[in-house]
Amino acid sequence: MSNEAGGGAAPKRTQVVVVGGGPAGLLLALLLHRAGIDCVVLERRSRDYVLSRIRAGVLEQGTTDLLRTAGVGGRMDREGLVHEGIDIAWRGETLHIDLRELSGGKTVTVYGQTEVTHDLYDALDTAGVPVVHEAADVLPQEVAGTAPFVTFRTEAEGEKRIDCDFVAGCDGFHGVCRTVIPASTIKTFERVYPFGWLGVLVRQPPIQEELVYAHSNRGFALCSLRNPQLSRYYVQCSLDESVEDWPETRFFDELAARLPQRIAANLKRGPAIEKSIAPLRSFVAEPMRHGRLFLAGDAAHIVPPTGAKGLNLAVSDVFYLSRALVAHYLDHDDGHLDRYSADALARVWKAERFSWWFTSMIHRFEDDGGFGQRIQEAEFDFLASSRAAQTALAENYVGLPF
Amino acid sequence: MSNEAGGGAAPKRTQVVVVGGGPAGLLLALLLHRAGIDCVVLERRSRDYVLSRIRAGVLEQGTTDLLRTAGVGGRMDREGLVHEGIDIAWRGETLHIDLRELSGGKTVTVYGQTEVTHDLYDALDTAGVPVVHEAADVLPQEVAGTAPFVTFRTEAEGEKRIDCDFVAGCDGFHGVCRTVIPASTIKTFERVYPFGWLGVLVRQPPIQEELVYAHSNRGFALCSLRNPQLSRYYVQCSLDESVEDWPETRFFDELAARLPQRIAANLKRGPAIEKSIAPLRSFVAEPMRHGRLFLAGDAAHIVPPTGAKGLNLAVSDVFYLSRALVAHYLDHDDGHLDRYSADALARVWKAERFSWWFTSMIHRFEDDGGFGQRIQEAEFDFLASSRAAQTALAENYVGLPF
Repeated sequence: MSNEAGGGAAPKRTQVVVVGGGPAGLLLALLLHRAGIDCVVLERRSRDYVLSRIRAGVLEQGTTDLLRTAGVGGRMDREGLVHEGIDIAWRGETLHIDLRELSGGKTVTVYGQTEVTHDLYDALDTAGVPVVHEAADVLPQEVAGTAPFVTFRTEAEGEKRIDCDFVAGCDGFHGVCRTVIPASTIKTFERVYPFGWLGVLVRQPPIQEELVYAHSNRGFALCSLRNPQLSRYYVQCSLDESVEDWPETRFFDELAARLPQRIAANLKRGPAIEKSIAPLRSFVAEPMRHGRLFLAGDAAHIVPPTGAKGLNLAVSDVFYLSRALVAHYLDHDDGHLDRYSADALARVWKAERFSWWFTSMIHRFEDDGGFGQRIQEAEFDFLASSRAAQTALAENYVGLPF
Repeated sequence: MSNEAGGGAAPKRTQVVVVGGGPAGLLLALLLHRAGIDCVVLERRSRDYVLSRIRAGVLEQGTTDLLRTAGVGGRMDREGLVHEGIDIAWRGETLHIDLRELSGGKTVTVYGQTEVTHDLYDALDTAGVPVVHEAADVLPQEVAGTAPFVTFRTEAEGEKRIDCDFVAGCDGFHGVCRTVIPASTIKTFERVYPFGWLGVLVRQPPIQEELVYAHSNRGFALCSLRNPQLSRYYVQCSLDESVEDWPETRFFDELAARLPQRIAANLKRGPAIEKSIAPLRSFVAEPMRHGRLFLAGDAAHIVPPTGAKGLNLAVSDVFYLSRALVAHYLDHDDGHLDRYSADALARVWKAERFSWWFTSMIHRFEDDGGFGQRIQEAEFDFLASSRAAQTALAENYVGLPF
């Protein structure tokens, strides 16, 4: 096994080509490398571009455990914020969900996806795993056969081809990998929600230590954070709107109006470092394998951001896929590879269910006569009165077992 | 307080006129009478008609407790079947929900609504509470003022009027009481489900001791019972169909096809004693009070039959209403009367949520691309894997506290 190639240059042959240099692809490459499996990562964008993407960063216990296993838990453990609970706000009241107590000791860690990506790049650089950036026209080919290869183009080296045993499609929802699977062999499931999230990043201490998920008649709001100096706030907005419609004054006024007064009083306003509107979508493609191509993360499934399952699901996919590839190469056992799609999807659908449920219960929907809104209120009332219901929420929030 | 009038004849004045001689009205009348409060029950149908209505009979712990308090628990305790669990069937598997263990010792009792009604009539007869049957054109009047009265007509006595302090509207979804409330002061919430339940009553031992709620790709099925010799089976059907489309052979073939084979093997077929199709609907009217008129049971709300909450909700309404009227007459305290609607609705909406959830998770829906079906499967998988989720189901099934 040779990894002397170093970042940037691509060999002509490897064992696993990882398409996509986001957290899923990088973590997979690192885990494969740790097991002595050769791989190359192909990323369409520049490293600076990837590292500038703003993404949520609420890591499940299983995610932080796997990052530590991969040897990238050091800075996360120093700088990440362990959260033992969340608040759910409703009609001016607040329900505290004690994640640690309800889940039998599990917690979540607030540590931005950008930071995770950064740590993974550093580890891959140190390990000398090749990561090719600005790889254009990446195309996995002959994945249904026994000799797949991936073609692409870089400005420095021109047209390239890497022969391999397997292709890992970690290239996100808009990536090429899912699209090379014939439509007749893949089935997709989708729900699009009739609203978006307007997110604002602001260099101010967070409104409170723990996250607040707030329902109000004006719409949903979320108070999150990246670190003790960097707050991330969201308000549910119409998909017709653009960020220009939301100057900071309007944004913070609206955010405050959707929160219980006691919490809103702590809101520290500031200029937006970043401001964007994201649509909310549930999406799953089945199966997550086609021949020697394996999909992982957003390439195979999308969740709405409520509950922060996106990155965590990508990580559990990578857990199943790295386990399967390691068993193939080291134990000559393809059982895990053959079960990869089923194993991953069983967990994916539970997280899809949770994200759909949490999204459905806490947003404001234009409703046919108000029945749905009363059901939302009853959902909250039952949640507030039932330790079992709170436990079911906590189990999902900290992450179901791999 | 005089109750010498006996069944049948109606006084000119009473304290509470109870409109509707179903279980809600009868139980309310009995509880009021036990507290020394005068009342008259007006029922549009004959007693034979009321007692021939086939209805579910899964009684929550709180329902059986209140029936005992009212002095009508004797036969129920002798003949009723205490159930400590239910089965949920899915993809050929069965998940047992241990109601007693999960709910901290609570159970449900299978005892037909017809039997409950019978016992209530017997108790009212013994007590001498007047129950006027075949009362036509019942109309509560002046309920917004301080001197309400109710007019009606019987074949024997012609036009009648009873003056009273309060009117209790226990006359069901199609009853007159809700309709006398001005539309401007009442808000209704409704969801109609795109299917019905075809029910068949058959004189055969039940397929198993406990109820089976079964999801299948062919649609929902329920195996219930009235007593050890009388089984009640249901299959989800199209609303376009009529009972003539379902001869016994088709019905039992379809029922068996929707059940796990292990369970279907025990099915004992027989001629249908009764066969009917019921639509599924969620409905709530708010508030449940208008002046001196108080709604209880189906007059104010309907649940789909999944989970058997209809009769139990009527009983909890009667609990709140009898408590309020007793406090008014005996303690001269109107606090409970003023809170009646809010108290009853808080519990109603939780049961509406549960019935909606259980209905949504276990029926077959024509779905936009299959997302909803996968969510149903994930719901079941999560339920099967989470004691907390099973506990939340059990808490609702045995009945949330009054």
